[in-house]
Amino acid sequence: MGVVASLPVSSAPAEPPVGKAEGGEDALSRLAGLLHRDLEACNRAIVARMDSPVALIPQLAAHIVAAGGKRIRPLLTLAAARMCGYPDAPDGMRHVHLATCVEFIHTATLLHDDVVDESLLRRGLASANAVFGNKASVLVGDFLFARSFQLMVDDGSLRVLAILSRAAATIAEGEVLQLVTQNDLSTSETRYLEVIKGKTAALFSAACQVGAVVAERPAREEQALADYGMNLGIAFQLVDDALDYAADQATLGKTVGDDFREGKITLPVLAAFQAGDASERDFWRRTIESSEQREDDLDHALHLMQRRGAIRTTLDRAARFAADAQRALAPFPDTELRSCLAAVADYTLSRAR
Amino acid sequence: MGVVASLPVSSAPAEPPVGKAEGGEDALSRLAGLLHRDLEACNRAIVARMDSPVALIPQLAAHIVAAGGKRIRPLLTLAAARMCGYPDAPDGMRHVHLATCVEFIHTATLLHDDVVDESLLRRGLASANAVFGNKASVLVGDFLFARSFQLMVDDGSLRVLAILSRAAATIAEGEVLQLVTQNDLSTSETRYLEVIKGKTAALFSAACQVGAVVAERPAREEQALADYGMNLGIAFQLVDDALDYAADQATLGKTVGDDFREGKITLPVLAAFQAGDASERDFWRRTIESSEQREDDLDHALHLMQRRGAIRTTLDRAARFAADAQRALAPFPDTELRSCLAAVADYTLSRAR
Repeated sequence: MGVVASLPVSSAPAEPPVGKAEGGEDALSRLAGLLHRDLEACNRAIVARMDSPVALIPQLAAHIVAAGGKRIRPLLTLAAARMCGYPDAPDGMRHVHLATCVEFIHTATLLHDDVVDESLLRRGLASANAVFGNKASVLVGDFLFARSFQLMVDDGSLRVLAILSRAAATIAEGEVLQLVTQNDLSTSETRYLEVIKGKTAALFSAACQVGAVVAERPAREEQALADYGMNLGIAFQLVDDALDYAADQATLGKTVGDDFREGKITLPVLAAFQAGDASERDFWRRTIESSEQREDDLDHALHLMQRRGAIRTTLDRAARFAADAQRALAPFPDTELRSCLAAVADYTLSRAR
Repeated sequence: MGVVASLPVSSAPAEPPVGKAEGGEDALSRLAGLLHRDLEACNRAIVARMDSPVALIPQLAAHIVAAGGKRIRPLLTLAAARMCGYPDAPDGMRHVHLATCVEFIHTATLLHDDVVDESLLRRGLASANAVFGNKASVLVGDFLFARSFQLMVDDGSLRVLAILSRAAATIAEGEVLQLVTQNDLSTSETRYLEVIKGKTAALFSAACQVGAVVAERPAREEQALADYGMNLGIAFQLVDDALDYAADQATLGKTVGDDFREGKITLPVLAAFQAGDASERDFWRRTIESSEQREDDLDHALHLMQRRGAIRTTLDRAARFAADAQRALAPFPDTELRSCLAAVADYTLSRAR
């Protein structure tokens, strides 16, 4: 576990430098700064509402919730609501409660993502859940999921409930589809996009959309925010998938190669496979389809991706979706929050610069 | 796996005969007969609403939903609604949709129950999920859970959403509490009752209560149905826990000893442990607390339960809760449905006669 791999040095100039986060990161911090009172209220609500007489629940949930998340999803809800003119507390606390719902749904999916299969266990890939066990991860995730619906019911908007329950179903569909495509190199890029739309972008989209709902904005603005979130989420996941092969581990605290070891089908793999020659394709078939991996295979995989510009292809796609996200913000007046949300799309890309 | 064990023959007359289902089973069949059109509509809705473009979802869900469940929970919703005077279709289909929600929540918990821990895997206890894997069980469960909320949103009642989202959170709490008490013989009977109230009775209770909601009955009747369901669910789980040590496997298709092998703390174990002498307590500590089990330990456990009347103690408790369930039906007029619901409480007990 925890193979340390830095990006192989190569003379190929086509591949962008990867690993250092730059100024773009400020966008998310700037958003958190602008919304700091809302965000603090949200953090308090998260702690208050994950409580339960069954002590293991807040213990395990805190373990995940506190684990240094950037709160990007709840920040999106808060920012969308405020950009739409949602009023200050004490009148307005709905956006804080819905941001909490969104974070609970996200945390539940993280906990359920921790569940490992027998096959992975055999290959020594038990991860965060090793501390508490598969079953506890599942059940505490279920609790947070149920609790998020209780919060929505307290909020009282059937429109919000419809948006977030649909997102929850779509997330599960995306995750199942990911499971189905695992180890399958015949997966099309379209299908891969369906996976990441489901597993990641659907919640980004819903998180933004409910901001317009609480501010009682017209359907056109709801849709614009849903589009912004959807495109942002796709860009975010594309970059994440690139980083899994290209992160500077020391800088970003991300382990390189997890997706490779699991045989996960992501765009970097698909791009390298499709652009590869016969021997390269054999390599991908052995390592990804047959899960036969040797010690230096990850390094070779990184080398082939470099040669075929697979990371650049992935980041180019991400840049296109980020631009679409920014365009979706056009219907809104040019405020500091809007420019900040636009900058978040750049930040998403900057994680890989 | 699949240790076959019939109840040890003993001269102790105190223990009731266990294993043959008797006339009482008719109550559930009778209910299904009375409500056959509603039940067929519910079965159709279950199939229709578990559909997804991701083929593995209906495949895996059907595997569980079709696996010969008695549909006791959706039947409770249908019966409660009808007893409360909910009108015939085409006016009335809400009870069918909510019965479907209830079955989806139940199926999701079954799927999540299938998830096994590394420790159990090591002891060779992977079960139904072996066909599809831990992860698929979790994700398809998540889908059904989300879908059940979508159905509730379509129904449009915030009251129903409040009742079922609270039940979902309570189920998760009960399951986590069960995990926490596992292998712990110092668990009190009160705490054990909290576990089964959560993991089983909360959904029985909610299933009944929403029947009163769709029929727009006053709070008193809602509460009466919630009480009926809660007591029925406790009785049901107590009998289930007894059957895990006392079922006639051939008759009931239940494997004896699963709870024992998992070190699950149930009333039969607690009763035998608490009534046992020093050497018996040592036996329970070794097998349940330390999970050190040898081949003939299950037989010895059954023998000790027989000696200490542990199964009778458990079934006596169940009978008390079943009687409470019947008493809770008092506010309703004496109709065939009411007598049928009362008989279901007897049926619950009869499974162990």
